[in-house]
Amino acid sequence: MKLMRVGAVGAEKPAILAADGTIRDLSAHVSDIAGAAISPEGLKKIAAIDTATLPVLSADQRIGACVAGTGKFICIGLNYSDHAAESGMAVPPEPVIFMKATSAICGPNDNVLIPRGSEKTDWEVELAVVIGKTAKYVSEADALDYVAGYAVAHDVSERAFQTERSGQWTKGKSCDTFGPTGPWLVTKDEVADSQNLNMWLKVNGEQMQNGSSATMVYGVKFLVSYLSQFMSLHPGDIISTGTPPGVGMGMKPPRYLRDGDVVELGIEGLGTQKQTFKADA
Amino acid sequence: MKLMRVGAVGAEKPAILAADGTIRDLSAHVSDIAGAAISPEGLKKIAAIDTATLPVLSADQRIGACVAGTGKFICIGLNYSDHAAESGMAVPPEPVIFMKATSAICGPNDNVLIPRGSEKTDWEVELAVVIGKTAKYVSEADALDYVAGYAVAHDVSERAFQTERSGQWTKGKSCDTFGPTGPWLVTKDEVADSQNLNMWLKVNGEQMQNGSSATMVYGVKFLVSYLSQFMSLHPGDIISTGTPPGVGMGMKPPRYLRDGDVVELGIEGLGTQKQTFKADA
Repeated sequence: MKLMRVGAVGAEKPAILAADGTIRDLSAHVSDIAGAAISPEGLKKIAAIDTATLPVLSADQRIGACVAGTGKFICIGLNYSDHAAESGMAVPPEPVIFMKATSAICGPNDNVLIPRGSEKTDWEVELAVVIGKTAKYVSEADALDYVAGYAVAHDVSERAFQTERSGQWTKGKSCDTFGPTGPWLVTKDEVADSQNLNMWLKVNGEQMQNGSSATMVYGVKFLVSYLSQFMSLHPGDIISTGTPPGVGMGMKPPRYLRDGDVVELGIEGLGTQKQTFKADA
Repeated sequence: MKLMRVGAVGAEKPAILAADGTIRDLSAHVSDIAGAAISPEGLKKIAAIDTATLPVLSADQRIGACVAGTGKFICIGLNYSDHAAESGMAVPPEPVIFMKATSAICGPNDNVLIPRGSEKTDWEVELAVVIGKTAKYVSEADALDYVAGYAVAHDVSERAFQTERSGQWTKGKSCDTFGPTGPWLVTKDEVADSQNLNMWLKVNGEQMQNGSSATMVYGVKFLVSYLSQFMSLHPGDIISTGTPPGVGMGMKPPRYLRDGDVVELGIEGLGTQKQTFKADA
């Protein structure tokens, strides 16, 4: 299933992309794409609904982030060996994790605000894993039992804030609108192999990233298990699994996003995003 | 005012500590100590209530974290010059910020779980600032307009997870129960000078930390303004402003918490906490 949230910011309705390509209203069945609705039992109930009976929503509406109630937006750093190389850093002996503020989450096609004082706003297409069931101390073998599905995430990053403004990356990762997520939460049954998905990103039509989750260093099952050793993962939590090569920081000379730039990105089977970058007033 | 939340985990009632020392039920007036209830207007409404008319709640009940709906738990690293020295690190030229997972938040007297595999669980008494109104690009002069009040926070830290397990501190700061917060959200009108509060912490009755927020490097007003340049701060967000000297990591030899250890901590005017540390099963 492709679950989504459509409508104005803060007033999104839960919806599903039906087989006929229409967006159908799920709000008579679930209050949001969040919490119990994305648990294994919740997803079973949604799967049992005949989407043809659901009201059709306008295809012109804004698409919101595909999941609500996200308590943690956990990101994995340097999780593609080629990206680590272009960043001038070694592949870490175990996953590097950092948090993106959940207040950074926005819809997949919303404008992204370049914060005041930013000179180094950069792009990163990432495969996001959405948790569906509370996970603590889970094994790698069981890890996917706790995953609701996958989505496209754009881990927008301000490199000067991230690396030149006194330690820890959070500062350059958490700016408002730096976390476009969606368009869809694609349930895991529709993703045959999360470690073999093409992923790409273009800036003003020019291809910048063209990779595959096949070259991820630490895969989805490992990451869910690994993170659950440190903290409970809860329904709606997002794990953004790192970016393949081709970010602006790695170019010679580096290239960063400016007011008016348009970024398009996508992952095989998970849909596409398109954002216009705007200088924050 | 001293606002609090009492009751079982997940079922806490909003309450207020009345002048007569009783805990009074606020649930007929606000749904929780969160969001609009802690805005300047919300706090004015609570202040207008005659607490003598409110139902008395049992003083024996569990006390929950003093604020709900926390989207971000932002911590400031190395924000006391003496603590930076004992950590073997320099005072940073601007604040070091990192995130503690909001899933780590718990009540001030709840048991704290020592995670599996932990050998270096450590203590840190901290002054927490609770945001009451959305803040973005605010000046230092206006910063307190966005603050609802203050609380005691215990920034429990696993030093090996934090510093020996591949970059970024989040991993050692976000374990379940690593964020006892409360007992009270003390509104700012009751705190004459947030930069002159005694703060202390004892382990099994032995004094380990005995400092004052007077020696904070970056003060509350500066931090609220500074953080708001990077991201919007929302009602219920917590800023934990760093710890004075005396943590276990800085002792010679270092000393860490073990199953059964009891930690008590407090800040002048903001109340006290007491936790028993338990090995996580």
